[in-house]
Amino acid sequence: MSDSSSTVKKNTGAGLRGQTAGQTAICTVGAEGNSLRYRGYDVVDLAENATFYETAYLVLKGELPNQVELDAWKAKLEPLRALPQPLKEVLERIPADAHPMDVMRTGCSFLGNLEQEGDFANQQDVADRLLAIFPAIVVYWYRYSHDGVRVSTDTGEDGLGAHFLHMLLDRSPTELEAKVMDVSLILYAEHEFNASTFTARVCASTLSDLHSCVTAAIGSLRGPLHGGANEAAMAMIEQYGSVDEAVDDVMKKLSAKELIMGFGHAVYRLRDPRNAIIKGWSQQLADLKGDTVLYAVSEAIERTMKEQKNMFANADFFHASAYHFMDIPTSLFTPIFVMSRVTGWAAHCFEQRANNRIIRPGAEYIGPVDRDVTPIDAR
Amino acid sequence: MSDSSSTVKKNTGAGLRGQTAGQTAICTVGAEGNSLRYRGYDVVDLAENATFYETAYLVLKGELPNQVELDAWKAKLEPLRALPQPLKEVLERIPADAHPMDVMRTGCSFLGNLEQEGDFANQQDVADRLLAIFPAIVVYWYRYSHDGVRVSTDTGEDGLGAHFLHMLLDRSPTELEAKVMDVSLILYAEHEFNASTFTARVCASTLSDLHSCVTAAIGSLRGPLHGGANEAAMAMIEQYGSVDEAVDDVMKKLSAKELIMGFGHAVYRLRDPRNAIIKGWSQQLADLKGDTVLYAVSEAIERTMKEQKNMFANADFFHASAYHFMDIPTSLFTPIFVMSRVTGWAAHCFEQRANNRIIRPGAEYIGPVDRDVTPIDAR
Repeated sequence: MSDSSSTVKKNTGAGLRGQTAGQTAICTVGAEGNSLRYRGYDVVDLAENATFYETAYLVLKGELPNQVELDAWKAKLEPLRALPQPLKEVLERIPADAHPMDVMRTGCSFLGNLEQEGDFANQQDVADRLLAIFPAIVVYWYRYSHDGVRVSTDTGEDGLGAHFLHMLLDRSPTELEAKVMDVSLILYAEHEFNASTFTARVCASTLSDLHSCVTAAIGSLRGPLHGGANEAAMAMIEQYGSVDEAVDDVMKKLSAKELIMGFGHAVYRLRDPRNAIIKGWSQQLADLKGDTVLYAVSEAIERTMKEQKNMFANADFFHASAYHFMDIPTSLFTPIFVMSRVTGWAAHCFEQRANNRIIRPGAEYIGPVDRDVTPIDAR
Repeated sequence: MSDSSSTVKKNTGAGLRGQTAGQTAICTVGAEGNSLRYRGYDVVDLAENATFYETAYLVLKGELPNQVELDAWKAKLEPLRALPQPLKEVLERIPADAHPMDVMRTGCSFLGNLEQEGDFANQQDVADRLLAIFPAIVVYWYRYSHDGVRVSTDTGEDGLGAHFLHMLLDRSPTELEAKVMDVSLILYAEHEFNASTFTARVCASTLSDLHSCVTAAIGSLRGPLHGGANEAAMAMIEQYGSVDEAVDDVMKKLSAKELIMGFGHAVYRLRDPRNAIIKGWSQQLADLKGDTVLYAVSEAIERTMKEQKNMFANADFFHASAYHFMDIPTSLFTPIFVMSRVTGWAAHCFEQRANNRIIRPGAEYIGPVDRDVTPIDAR
């Protein structure tokens, strides 16, 4: 993020690009063009040397936990994975063709009726509950509406990603699958003032409750310009039967100036630091699953984009194949983003509340001026 | 809104105050310190010479309707007041002690599962549906959870406010009640880039669906710094048994530097143009109901605030007594705001979509820098 504090504000203010909307101690994005740090820790370091629960603890509370703190937190979170009966009944009334992000948004909002935050002293409890329950919300709906199964949320899995996979696939994930899911959740946990997080902060600035803030953020992440890039990448990748076919078609798309999803980034200039990590895990999954097409096609597209347009793959691109190798339906890719990013959203809401001013920008008026109401029979 | 386009941006950016976040042709607030105009029409003019449906049509479509256009629109809206069966079943699962704004937020979000917007060509249909259905969402829940009654949404009432009152009170409203509700909805329909509308626009800027945008906006309006001022005003006003008691206590509160709800405004400097309108209607209701305390107390508090602090009553203050005279429970005041403001929210989403750039401001980092992950057993 470039420091534009000394520049003169542009009159149109489109997208607030380059404008500072507040202070944060949670995250830096794109320093030196290619880094992502949570609370000062490089995401590459965290992905190699910490778990998602440790990372979520860091994002929410500011410091990495020691073993005692981590164990206590996990013991607290485990029973919070269960769905209240009325929420199950609501999820059972959502049709199979609903958008999974609408399900997540509705599940979060409905939970707010059953378990009101009340005093902000309870904010960490609400954040913990949302973090623990989100996998169950989307999988319970998915399995019930698609398979008629009322899935058990009591998986006994240690990690949150493994817990999600277990409910979805009706089996314990392999060690590799559990590890990849855990790393994936680390990579998506936080990303400064992106649109969904900024939505959460605007909502928090009215001193609304945390369920409202997270519900609002899910609504923003649902948008195709924000979440959903890995779903779009998957839709493209899976249509190719070979590397040659993929390269030919991508070249054609580039000639036609079509957008290739999963490349470039609004903030990173040199590369997305998350790409190499998830790419490595995707390759390991491909080897294990005996895949001979999908990973090779993904790599060929990445190479073509680099050669032709000097564009780098972002975090979303190799997530597509990685998730696919774990038998996750494409429509559930963005809900996984929610399961992880709720940590960043909640942390930003806490920060906004701790030093709040209601977020209320101005607008430039470009409409008609001073008109008088004409009686309706004279219009 | 002062034009600050030539000023240098402040580094902290708290609340984006004085920063322009985009262009709009929908509304001006506080020009000359005291005016509110929708699409160039003064809200005072609209409140005197138009109905809420005419005003909503203006806000959503840019021009006041003629009689043929208005009749066609009303004919379209009337059947859209009905609740789908699964939504009724969801509302029946929300406890009586839920926050009514959580009910509105959840009802809107759930509806998005049943009736996806899909292509943005459908956006006006979704806005029409939300406008028509919101009164039923909150009243169906309220009557079912409080009285065990499954209310009929088929009231046959012409105006949306009358429709709301009829479901709530189980009778046709009087002509005066119907008129006051209609005017109230006009006054709350739109207010430029306030926090809930800005929330809706941030969400819309990711190209998310309209249900997400409105759900997010409801979440922001729920906050006590935004909606809810009329509820807080009511809570204060109704505790006084006489004018003397009210004045004494307000003087005490002012000495203790306590906040008096319903006074002053972030944007209007001289007066809130909506106050005189709703005050007049509140007085008429007081006369008709034979009230001898509530209106007099309200007026005395307004006078005291003017004399002591030179502060003016805003739109929320006399709304409190007006709603109370119509037997509306205080907890439903802010949901009425939603029923009206959904027009402004939807119009702003349409405008954002028509000339979109994703809203993604920057942040100033004030946290720890460059730390290395220590193994957990060494923390």
